[in-house]
Order: sequence, then structure tokens, then C-alpha cells
Amino acid sequence: MSVYTSVSQDEMRAWLQRYALGELVELKGIAAGVTNTNYFVTTTHGRYVLTLFEVLTLEEVPYFLKLKSHLSRHGVACPAPIADHTDSFASLLAGKPACLVSCLSGQDVSQANAAQCFAVGEMLAQMHLAGNTFPLRMANPRGPAWWHRTAAELYRHMPADEAALLRDEIAVQASHRFDDLPHGVVHADLFKDNVLMDGDKIAGFIDFYYACNDILLYDVAIALNDWARLDDGSIDDALATALLAGYQAVRPLTAAEIEAWPLMLRAAAIRFWTSRLLDFYRPASGELTFTKDPGVFGRLLQAHRQRQQFWL
Amino acid sequence: MSVYTSVSQDEMRAWLQRYALGELVELKGIAAGVTNTNYFVTTTHGRYVLTLFEVLTLEEVPYFLKLKSHLSRHGVACPAPIADHTDSFASLLAGKPACLVSCLSGQDVSQANAAQCFAVGEMLAQMHLAGNTFPLRMANPRGPAWWHRTAAELYRHMPADEAALLRDEIAVQASHRFDDLPHGVVHADLFKDNVLMDGDKIAGFIDFYYACNDILLYDVAIALNDWARLDDGSIDDALATALLAGYQAVRPLTAAEIEAWPLMLRAAAIRFWTSRLLDFYRPASGELTFTKDPGVFGRLLQAHRQRQQFWL
Repeated sequence: MSVYTSVSQDEMRAWLQRYALGELVELKGIAAGVTNTNYFVTTTHGRYVLTLFEVLTLEEVPYFLKLKSHLSRHGVACPAPIADHTDSFASLLAGKPACLVSCLSGQDVSQANAAQCFAVGEMLAQMHLAGNTFPLRMANPRGPAWWHRTAAELYRHMPADEAALLRDEIAVQASHRFDDLPHGVVHADLFKDNVLMDGDKIAGFIDFYYACNDILLYDVAIALNDWARLDDGSIDDALATALLAGYQAVRPLTAAEIEAWPLMLRAAAIRFWTSRLLDFYRPASGELTFTKDPGVFGRLLQAHRQRQQFWL
Repeated sequence: MSVYTSVSQDEMRAWLQRYALGELVELKGIAAGVTNTNYFVTTTHGRYVLTLFEVLTLEEVPYFLKLKSHLSRHGVACPAPIADHTDSFASLLAGKPACLVSCLSGQDVSQANAAQCFAVGEMLAQMHLAGNTFPLRMANPRGPAWWHRTAAELYRHMPADEAALLRDEIAVQASHRFDDLPHGVVHADLFKDNVLMDGDKIAGFIDFYYACNDILLYDVAIALNDWARLDDGSIDDALATALLAGYQAVRPLTAAEIEAWPLMLRAAAIRFWTSRLLDFYRPASGELTFTKDPGVFGRLLQAHRQRQQFWL
């Protein structure tokens, strides 16, 4: 399913010589993931995950791998990239930028419970603290400028009432400044399918390929919009409260963050509404992606706009 | 046994706030290790080993922790130090330099089999390759200058025949130069009790506190002198051959190394004969150590001097 690029045993055996990981025992494609090709690689030393990047270039990959290495070194649960004998985390394999990372246990969950939401909030706050000492910088490629530009191309395809809602919300967001909120390294895509759980514990955050420097609270809002959302699209109060309690057990929100919170939930909804609308109306844009229902985030935005209580 | 410095639950709980590791669940002293104090630390995120350094200072500790972090990042089996929110691997706890590292599975073995010797040789070679990109430098505090100086104080305490042997060997070693042999990062103390085994696999090299820059072949000789040695003090041919085969599967020895090998085995024997003699004749020198029989290494040196075949 997600093996877009095939790697032969011989190619793998030769490429493994770059590493201190022993000899190849088994190479097995992983049928998960949307954008990249992944394999389980078992060597005489242990088990690793191989990723071949289908979109990112060899120049773009190191930021994400260095970030995962930094976070892993700080004890944040995520895959640890393995450096090769040139001290690089990535090099070409089968013509694609490729890396090896440690293999985590755990599985993603389709519906979270309150303990899991607490754990995700807690680990996210730990990730934000650990990110403080990460020296590299990355602008958010899916920030407000991107929504604005992208939405302008989408309005004409959308039903009038939805277009009006998106246009109005983007205008509301543009009229607010969040410069006084704590910034740092954010995951920016911490949905349930990007977290491996081991029961109620976090086995690891994965898929850091939207990570960047942005407002920390925005990351909390993105996570809450997915983790606390039920199948019917509504936000469950207990799950939302648990996620925020977990986060604040490590990093209590500032007064400015508490004030900005309702709008931030809406900003996080816009970001994914816009990208899903883009995938929906322009499926042939060349990106390797599966179309998901954009309406979920339109309805979530609407609900956030009418909400009176925000779990704080 | 090896808890020289006690840490209370409250001290630990407060110190853990420096890290992204969650809340303290359990703190338990470890009855192993000779020089430092070790605890198992279980938090809501996982299990770690706490080390309180009884001899090294806060200025001396980072070299060893950065080395372990570098090697771990390259997939060499060893504990991975955890960085705190100031991006440091060590800080004071109960008045001692202290660090947290990942908890490895496995146990040391009292007698190795051939498969284990192969695995140790192989991982040691991988460690030597991975060490090539480690940027820090450390002179060997237990090198030839140290033997020479230390032995000079020991001769008068030793039986005449032993003193003559040690004096002669040190002179022989001094008359040879090894400048053309490959140098790099060496463990310098890779005895069986410094390797955790998981069956025939290496779970991890531990106790890197003699690690330094020196001749790579010297590290192989130190390991062989312990791993291939039987209870009666003799070297087992099959174990020695296996260790060397494992090493050369990753890094074949050069012609110069093959030529130097017999002398290097003797150099490695001197180093431990001298330090054990020092512990034996000066037990009250203030070092926290247990006296081990020095004679083992005197007899091993004698055997190496008479040996005709060196397993290469």
C-alpha cells in the first residue's frame, strides 16, 4: 500500500554497510503511511524502520531527523534516527533520501480514552519544553499566509455558505495578533494516527514532517481537535479536559494563552479544513495523498464558533 | 553495596523536573558497580538508570556521556544518556554529579561462549568505526607513561621474579613504536562485567569511564584477554578466534596491526597487572575499589610471551 519505492535485499545489504547495525536479516514493507515508503529492517543487532522519502529532498530531510534525534535524546517518546559512519542521518537509497530510525512498540488508536488524552497532552508539553534547546529553525509551511492563499483558490469550488464561513474565519484570525504567545518547536500534525500508544502510555510521537516553529498553543489546539473528537464530529468534554490537564501538569498556560485559546481552536480547524479542501477539489495535484472528508473540519469550526465553554 | 550516596524520593522528584521524563514512580538502589552509586528510576514514562559519580567531577563527566550519546545515536549498543531541559547530560544531585541513562535489558556473563565472543568482537569494531566521527578527545590516563611511573613504585613490594618480568616487559614495550597503527575512540575496559548480554546478542556495552583515544588494536587485546580467558587463566583458542573473527567481519586488521598483535596482547596484560598490583599493595589509596587478584595478569603476560600462535 505505502511501498511506492521498492528496495531489494541486495541494495539494502550494501546500504547497511554505512551503519554500525550489523548484517541484514529481514526486509519487509510496511502497509501504512500515506506519503513515504516504509520498511521494517531486521539486522543482527535489532529492528529498525527504514523510510524512503517520496517528496522531501535530501536537503530538506535533516531538519526533521535532527529534531527527532534531539527530542529522543531528551527522553521524549519518538523514533530515534540512527547516524551512519559519515555522521549523517540520511543518504540516497534506490534514488530516494532514506533514513533508519529505532523501532517503537505500540499502535495508533481510532478512539482515545481520557487517560490516553492526558498522556498525549503531557508528552506534548514535554516535547515543547525539550524543543526549547533545539537550535534549528523552520517556518510553518501551512501557516496563515498559506491558508489565505489556498482558500482564495477554493472559494469558487465551495458551496456558498461554507465559502462564507471560511472567508469570515480567515478574516477574524487575520485581525488578531498572537505575537505575545509562547513560541517554539511544534509537531503541527499530532493526530491520533501520528501517535503510537502502548495501552494508556505514549510509545511514541511519529510523522514529524510538518514540525516547525510556531505558537505552542496552536499545537495543543491541533491535538485537541483530533484526540477529543468523537465519531459524530463533536468534541467530548471529558477527553478535552483530560488533554488540557495533562498538558498543564507540565506547562501551565499563561493568561495570554488562556485568552487566545478559543480562537486558536478555530485556527487549528481552518488549517486542516483548508488542506482537506485542497485535496478534495484538486486530487490530481500530484501529491501522494488520500482524500479525507473536509467537512469534518468545517463543522468543527462552526461548533467552536458557537461554543461557550472551552475546558479551561 | 554500591549505594555510596543516598537519594531521597523527594530529592529525586525535584531533580526529575529538570527532565521531560514524567513523574517519579519508583526509586531503587542497584547492588552492582564498584565506583559509582546507581539507582533504577521508574517514571510515568519509563525506566532509567541514575548514576551518581563518586570520583569524577561535573567537569569530567560530560566527555563520557557525550561519547555514549554519540555511540548510541550510531546504533552501537550502550546506554543512551538523557539530556535535561538545559540540554545537559549531568548536573548535581545530593552533592554529586549525576545523570540518567536509558535502561538496557541483559546481564553480564561469567563465562562467554564463542557466539558471544564473536558478537563482542563485532560490536567493538562497530564502536571503533562509529567513534571516527566523535569530535572530543581524551588522552589515556592508564597508558605507558602511567605503567612506567606506577610500576616504579611497585617493584620493591613485588617478589623478585615478578618484578623482573614486569620491568622487562615495560622495557620491551618502550622499545616499540605503534604510531602507524589505527587510532580512535577505545573503551579500554571491555571486560565481561562491562557488557550486558541478551543471550548471544549484545544488549549493551557499559562503564565507559576509561574510554579515551588510543590504539584500536589495544582495545581488542584488552577485550580478548578477558573474554577468551578461562577460569584457570589460560586463553581458549576457540573463544579468541571467535572474538577476532567477529571484529574482522567489520574491520579487517591491517598488516601493521597483525604484526603488532602479539605485543599488543602483552601491553593489555601489563595495564591491568599494574593497576591490580596498585590496588593490592596500596589498598588504602582512597579509591573506592575491590581488590582483585593481580596474579592473573602476571601469568597471562608470561603465557603471551611464550605463545607461538595468536589466532590470526
